[in-house]
Amino acid sequence: MVVERIRDLDVLKVKSGAAEMAKDRIACEEPLEIRIEQEPLAVIMRTPGDDIELTLGFLYAEEIIRHSDDVGTIAHCKSGTDPNLENVVNVTLAPDRKGSIEAKLAQKKAARSTVTSSSCGVCGKLTIESLQASALPFAEAAVIDTQLISRLPGALRDAQQVFEQTGGLHGAALFDRTGTLLVVREDVGRHNAVDKCVGAMLMREALPVAGAILMVSGRTSFEILQKALMARVQTVAAVSAPSSLAVELARASNMGLCGFVRGEKINVYAGEIATTR
Amino acid sequence: MVVERIRDLDVLKVKSGAAEMAKDRIACEEPLEIRIEQEPLAVIMRTPGDDIELTLGFLYAEEIIRHSDDVGTIAHCKSGTDPNLENVVNVTLAPDRKGSIEAKLAQKKAARSTVTSSSCGVCGKLTIESLQASALPFAEAAVIDTQLISRLPGALRDAQQVFEQTGGLHGAALFDRTGTLLVVREDVGRHNAVDKCVGAMLMREALPVAGAILMVSGRTSFEILQKALMARVQTVAAVSAPSSLAVELARASNMGLCGFVRGEKINVYAGEIATTR
Repeated sequence: MVVERIRDLDVLKVKSGAAEMAKDRIACEEPLEIRIEQEPLAVIMRTPGDDIELTLGFLYAEEIIRHSDDVGTIAHCKSGTDPNLENVVNVTLAPDRKGSIEAKLAQKKAARSTVTSSSCGVCGKLTIESLQASALPFAEAAVIDTQLISRLPGALRDAQQVFEQTGGLHGAALFDRTGTLLVVREDVGRHNAVDKCVGAMLMREALPVAGAILMVSGRTSFEILQKALMARVQTVAAVSAPSSLAVELARASNMGLCGFVRGEKINVYAGEIATTR
Repeated sequence: MVVERIRDLDVLKVKSGAAEMAKDRIACEEPLEIRIEQEPLAVIMRTPGDDIELTLGFLYAEEIIRHSDDVGTIAHCKSGTDPNLENVVNVTLAPDRKGSIEAKLAQKKAARSTVTSSSCGVCGKLTIESLQASALPFAEAAVIDTQLISRLPGALRDAQQVFEQTGGLHGAALFDRTGTLLVVREDVGRHNAVDKCVGAMLMREALPVAGAILMVSGRTSFEILQKALMARVQTVAAVSAPSSLAVELARASNMGLCGFVRGEKINVYAGEIATTR
């Protein structure tokens, strides 16, 4: 299976009124259907590649699986004549976990509304409270090493250059407490890039990582902080701004949250700054 | 009801190792629960404000309503003691439309998967085909006036300055064929900013607008093109890159799609360039 992350398209490039046809590199966006025991669960618009990791990370963030052992097999659908089979991943459950996970799924299905546009399930303060029921706040406030954090945007950029750059892909990376890169992933959807990172770590059975830092190329929303909290990643740093609910969740959960990490400047929205530097 | 789009938060601003506490303006993100006849339909993470327009635009993009006349009343929930009532909008249906819309909702509910992370419903090519069943392609190719398009990013920026700027809000605006601004809206979610614009036009009973152009501050995904197509807005322009599926949908639907609209440069991904200038 050839994975197409980037596509070369002929586009008209106009400059000061003059137009010429030229190639342009575009980030691929395709829907991925996730099935559990062949039962459709979700459709995610994503950049192809790392679909298995994305699926694992998504199921983890949705609290459907808690460990890679919950999964029996996970693979693209291979039978049938549908030309879109590369966009379908089927997950089978480990025999000893099947009953309890299917019960959880039925419960979730009953609780869900008809249409869900964003990936958050419930309302307001309730969201943070219900999250804290399943993902406890960290016991102690995050301690932020600003010198280390200020190196991460460059490290993320360097790692993204290994992949293709189109100006259209969000990047996410996990670093350990010393700033060593653990995993980097890209996607048209920033939440997918995070799910791919978490899924990759699950596949390595390497979660949680004490002191891990999630660095993202764009903004931070509630959803990004939620995914980090679920994966027990205490600190999140971003090149751009956080939303108010991202800050609220970080503060309520003893997480660290940095934004506008640019050069020697950092805004620290949550967490404490390390005093010894 | 006070609508809080922007919040001033105390944050630690670190510069070259020195930290000081300072105010920072953050874009608000809160969940909005949309109910139909008090039945929860969806929860959307959004920036408060223009909730009625957002609700209308969302219901329109989801094909639940086709016209503002489909709606009887639409208002924030006012009864009860829940402190989050400003985050709940209830829609009642027009009596003569109630039966058919509720039947459509039941159908949608049956067709949906358990968890939907992105707002697209179905798979791959199928998505474009099923969309075209409900939103026909435009009869003729979009004709793009590149001189006019190149003025729109500045016009969007100027209009956004009327609101607050946090570096954290996406902007979307509709312009008519002469470049006159029809509506501009902001949100932490770019798809919400588009829904708000469409909802505002629905409230004015001003859709469709022949020759209208949607300008967005960020990137264009399948979802943005889908919303424009549903509202019969033929041309979409963006400051950043499109995804491959956005380009495919635009080309399949005779839409115009411009990206990287910066200064005198424009990439035209779909549509024809006006020959008389």
